[in-house]
Amino acid sequence: MSRPIWLTLAMSLDGYIADAQDGYAWITGQGDPRLDTVKRWDFDAFTAACDTVILGRRCYTLGQHLPFKGKRIIVGTRSPFNDPLVETSTDVVETVKALRNEEGPAVFVFGGAQIAQAVLAEGCLDRMVIGIVPVTLGNGIRLFEASSMTQLWTLQDVIIEDGIVILDYVRRKA
Amino acid sequence: MSRPIWLTLAMSLDGYIADAQDGYAWITGQGDPRLDTVKRWDFDAFTAACDTVILGRRCYTLGQHLPFKGKRIIVGTRSPFNDPLVETSTDVVETVKALRNEEGPAVFVFGGAQIAQAVLAEGCLDRMVIGIVPVTLGNGIRLFEASSMTQLWTLQDVIIEDGIVILDYVRRKA
Repeated sequence: MSRPIWLTLAMSLDGYIADAQDGYAWITGQGDPRLDTVKRWDFDAFTAACDTVILGRRCYTLGQHLPFKGKRIIVGTRSPFNDPLVETSTDVVETVKALRNEEGPAVFVFGGAQIAQAVLAEGCLDRMVIGIVPVTLGNGIRLFEASSMTQLWTLQDVIIEDGIVILDYVRRKA
Repeated sequence: MSRPIWLTLAMSLDGYIADAQDGYAWITGQGDPRLDTVKRWDFDAFTAACDTVILGRRCYTLGQHLPFKGKRIIVGTRSPFNDPLVETSTDVVETVKALRNEEGPAVFVFGGAQIAQAVLAEGCLDRMVIGIVPVTLGNGIRLFEASSMTQLWTLQDVIIEDGIVILDYVRRKA
């Protein structure tokens, strides 16, 4: 056993997690719940299963650490800084690899995009929950940049909320 | 009323429709049908609703027109050629726009990637059925290249078959 590394993000159908202005206003449903599943996405349960959150400096500065009070927070940053609330890491992938060798609850890789991409590209994710928003943005910041690694996943749950399809995948052995 | 323009493709979770060697061997399920819907994807019903198929020259040469006997087949090609079975088009987007102004059954934009991308980027698709395969390929040929157009969609159906999630979207007015 080891700590599993988890990620959850909303993504446009064409693969973007933020628009070209770094905005998120496009993350909305379709105003038509006809396909909604009975089961709802439980973000609180997801985060409750994690004792550690990793996020980028920009996310941290924007206050996106605030829902994670009481958890161990690790901020990925090239310029470490002093803040009694957090630890910092100049190499998030190495930090994730070290955490993955420990025993313990899950680690939530919160983002932003660079951190999510780096962890994914190194094959360090054990679970991905991706909410596919019914919009093609055309441009912005992609979740999946090119990588040398092909990875297999097992779909373990699907939740639909107002046209947003939440796909819950765990790593599958080849 | 006008002819609706339809597309259906399998895509990896990271957005590729062919791998870097132009291969499709990665398009397989997860060997675990636990989430399968009762409803199955009916490709025959999809094609039966179309009287016209548009595909690239390479797809045509590879024999991918063969299932479409009896339909009007339009081959996108920069160098028109004589073949009594087909019409050719040197500008698929213009051809699609002209068809869209006609009355009639749906038009199936079969692919390859360049043709699908071009039609999508011009906002000429009315329905997209995307099967999301539980694999991140890392590289290959993307369905969604950057475009200047943001488009809204309505999810109208979801089918799950062995971990492949088939998302059926129609264009949504802003």
